[in-house]
Amino acid sequence: MVDEIRNILFIMYDQLRHDYLSCAGHKTLHTPHMDRLAGMGLRFSNAYVQSPVCGSSRMSFYTGRYVSSHGAAYNGYPLKVGELTVGDHLRKLGVDSWLIGKTHMQADAEGMARLGLAPDSVIGARVAECGFDVWDREDGLYAHGPKGRYGAAHSPYNDYLSSLGYPGENPWHDFANAGDDGGDLASGWFMKNAGQAANIAEDHSETPWLTRRAIDFMDSAEGAAPWMAHLSFIKPHWPYIVPAPYHNMYGPDDVQPAIRHEVERQNPHPVLGAYQASPVGQAFARDDVRAAVIPAYMGLIKQCDDQLGVLLDYLESSGRMDDTMIVLTSDHGDYLGDHWLGEKDLFHQPSVKVPLIIYDPRPSANATRGQVCDALVEAIDLAPTFVEAKGGQVPDHILEGRSLLPLLAGQMPDDWRDFVVSEYDYATSPMAEKLGLEPRDCRLFMLADARYTYIHAEGGFRPILFDRETDPEEFFDRGGSAEYTDVLDMMQGRLARWARRMSQRTTQSEAQLRARRNSSADIGVMIGVWDERDVTPEQAAYYKGAAPRK
Amino acid sequence: MVDEIRNILFIMYDQLRHDYLSCAGHKTLHTPHMDRLAGMGLRFSNAYVQSPVCGSSRMSFYTGRYVSSHGAAYNGYPLKVGELTVGDHLRKLGVDSWLIGKTHMQADAEGMARLGLAPDSVIGARVAECGFDVWDREDGLYAHGPKGRYGAAHSPYNDYLSSLGYPGENPWHDFANAGDDGGDLASGWFMKNAGQAANIAEDHSETPWLTRRAIDFMDSAEGAAPWMAHLSFIKPHWPYIVPAPYHNMYGPDDVQPAIRHEVERQNPHPVLGAYQASPVGQAFARDDVRAAVIPAYMGLIKQCDDQLGVLLDYLESSGRMDDTMIVLTSDHGDYLGDHWLGEKDLFHQPSVKVPLIIYDPRPSANATRGQVCDALVEAIDLAPTFVEAKGGQVPDHILEGRSLLPLLAGQMPDDWRDFVVSEYDYATSPMAEKLGLEPRDCRLFMLADARYTYIHAEGGFRPILFDRETDPEEFFDRGGSAEYTDVLDMMQGRLARWARRMSQRTTQSEAQLRARRNSSADIGVMIGVWDERDVTPEQAAYYKGAAPRK
Repeated sequence: MVDEIRNILFIMYDQLRHDYLSCAGHKTLHTPHMDRLAGMGLRFSNAYVQSPVCGSSRMSFYTGRYVSSHGAAYNGYPLKVGELTVGDHLRKLGVDSWLIGKTHMQADAEGMARLGLAPDSVIGARVAECGFDVWDREDGLYAHGPKGRYGAAHSPYNDYLSSLGYPGENPWHDFANAGDDGGDLASGWFMKNAGQAANIAEDHSETPWLTRRAIDFMDSAEGAAPWMAHLSFIKPHWPYIVPAPYHNMYGPDDVQPAIRHEVERQNPHPVLGAYQASPVGQAFARDDVRAAVIPAYMGLIKQCDDQLGVLLDYLESSGRMDDTMIVLTSDHGDYLGDHWLGEKDLFHQPSVKVPLIIYDPRPSANATRGQVCDALVEAIDLAPTFVEAKGGQVPDHILEGRSLLPLLAGQMPDDWRDFVVSEYDYATSPMAEKLGLEPRDCRLFMLADARYTYIHAEGGFRPILFDRETDPEEFFDRGGSAEYTDVLDMMQGRLARWARRMSQRTTQSEAQLRARRNSSADIGVMIGVWDERDVTPEQAAYYKGAAPRK
Repeated sequence: MVDEIRNILFIMYDQLRHDYLSCAGHKTLHTPHMDRLAGMGLRFSNAYVQSPVCGSSRMSFYTGRYVSSHGAAYNGYPLKVGELTVGDHLRKLGVDSWLIGKTHMQADAEGMARLGLAPDSVIGARVAECGFDVWDREDGLYAHGPKGRYGAAHSPYNDYLSSLGYPGENPWHDFANAGDDGGDLASGWFMKNAGQAANIAEDHSETPWLTRRAIDFMDSAEGAAPWMAHLSFIKPHWPYIVPAPYHNMYGPDDVQPAIRHEVERQNPHPVLGAYQASPVGQAFARDDVRAAVIPAYMGLIKQCDDQLGVLLDYLESSGRMDDTMIVLTSDHGDYLGDHWLGEKDLFHQPSVKVPLIIYDPRPSANATRGQVCDALVEAIDLAPTFVEAKGGQVPDHILEGRSLLPLLAGQMPDDWRDFVVSEYDYATSPMAEKLGLEPRDCRLFMLADARYTYIHAEGGFRPILFDRETDPEEFFDRGGSAEYTDVLDMMQGRLARWARRMSQRTTQSEAQLRARRNSSADIGVMIGVWDERDVTPEQAAYYKGAAPRK
């Protein structure tokens, strides 16, 4: 162990629920390597994402800013040119930021063209890739349908499979995400196939491939200089299908009971109701779907855990464990039928909370190794944590999160936040159409404190409220309850205060502004001055003498 | 007159009060040319700026966005790279935007360097100049003091004076803004000299010079293509000194009584109190100061009006009056001792309201010529007005104002806004220091509707409220009055709603988002699908067939 953090390994899984780790209490899924990291570091049991969906959540992780501050509020909304990323902040500190895997970044092509930024220039590429230099960008969704393809991105993983001799245009789908059902293609896009083994050698599937790519990076010359590497796995995100031996490692008996209650379907809030009624909500309400899908989801996580073991072994044997901060988290969770919902999108705990483990190699963090911290932390806290870990001053006029280093050292700041915020934009969803909403009214804001989860929905709806002290599983929506008027008022006041936050004055720091106080007369602008007696002799000196002649 | 607007002449004065035009009711100041324009167009009697200070007000005029949306919240705060300006929007419509005069724009040098934008490239120059191509940039403040100069900008006006043989480094100050007091330099920075004639031929002073520069532009090849020209005068902004014959055209008898009341100084709101106690507040509380300064201010306006006559005559004689939209406004007002205050900064009507006259040459505007419109309009309405005037679709996911064209045609939209918003950031002021505030807490938000003016101050203060129906002069602060609880609640609710507005999702339009609804399965991403029966045969077709072999 050393006194200085040299590198930062920022590991992200996709759609990994906060409670699907054995160290977080899962009863039938054993994740010894995640637990091993938790034993070495500090696990946060109340880590919230800024938006429970890939794209907007990640843009908040990478910018350190709330969704309504950076504006990339849903998958595919381009992050506008000019938004700073953690890569920009770290580069000032001499640290390069590398991408190995998924970002879900959509470049602002129009903004780049307006500013003449070529995507193939060094600066343009970083702008297009969310501030990262790209080792491998692999977003991992290569779908095709009647109206074309989902995304036009190049897939290094498909290249890899092709190089191994996997045939076809899209071996990602045909092998890694499909089974062989007695000679018939069993696509992972159909959940009935979740129990099939993916038609690929396990070693060739996405998670082992990306793990090896990360090790290649660390072994490379690029990995020899100080770095922050974002190792961003595609899994356990759907398609829910996994190669042998993980495909039948778990069965229906390993599936935990759904966290749901009939009351949730009785006169639900219109937005909740629309999501319950969506195809994915309807599907995950079925027990047979849960029994088929969840074992595959668990298998995917088990594979992730095994590969984390490979990675941790490499870090230990290479000596990197001694000088590398390791972060493990996810971009959002997965309802899996809880609350009669599938996917993520909304703000119940299985969706909006994520695992977060941070290992700090320095002795300063010894006090918290193996501990669990229940402070309210947010995805946007990572960017300032990284800046501070690399010795920088956190630019708190840009970054809206707070460094977690004090918590890692076992010190809880007195003024720590008392609520977290998450947002969701469903303007592009069929639910928006069903509810008859204008795109700009499809915005949800969630505030959660230690006890309550409050959700404000634009568009004229009443709020949603859960009291997690009396209702830890969030079954009973108190948003219309007279009994909770005071709580609703309190949360509404907090939302108003948060909404007025200073999020766009990003070109001047607090220190720069302080330094300007009282200075204008010193540079000659004298406002409200009657005569020389109102200013210092030095100030007056600049404006006296003989009247000049032309 | 024609059916199409070819050019837009966007005239701005600096620090011109809304009520210092004879058409707006001033009793002793006659402005026949402003009145002439008002007779040809529509005058708005409730036009509010987004911030009562030069820089942030102008950034809102030019971006069409509220101050907390663009972030350049005070003079000298750089407008961040990536913010779109009216120039960007008009260029898409084949219209160039030219600057002739002042913008108070501070370029985001750090952001430009980060993106590799050279200030001397075409794109870089536009980014640095707030989206304009520069005919002349002349911000008009060339001050010097013990700690250096205010701004390092080049002054084309100083070049002009030098070319005429005016000596010295800063003839702007020594001649245009100073008098000759019996052989002694009588600097305009000292208000005691306000009654002196500026030591310059009237024809060489700033306003006639800039008027000629505008005529030169329109006569030039650049002026031959369709344009929006921002003719942005430096005056009647301080220094309060004007050349003969304007220096003694008005005297103390022409000064209107101060709009103020002793009650305003009794236990004022802390922020108001701090501004009253500032040097400029103290100075303008003095009758001798008002008697000396206001006649000079009126002389400056009279000179502006005479030069407007020159300009209007040119437009008529050149035929440009037939195809040019003309806008006349100001960036903010001037307290001039009203409410025991000087300068601008706060939100009483003399500060936050501005003159606004729009002349639309098309027959569609005939119905409103010479009329006065009392609708609540904002500075941010001009950018969308210009876009629509040039046939464009207003990008309402970026521009936060509304086109005024319907109002010019005599139609009041049913859903017109019922309140306006203005903001102010005093983080760099001595008042912030006196009040012991962190920079981020030095933020004020004003909401004004047809009756009330409500001001929210961050930093833990109570709000300020004026009831302009019972107290048209805004003497009695009801912010702490139990009688007004309902009004305060209403305004607080409006502020909360406004603060949650969607201001940063600027890379996707409403139409683009609507078009994406229901589309994901068509491009192959099938979420929550159990089997082929859950999708269309076309969608399913992409994922069936024989399982491939490696």
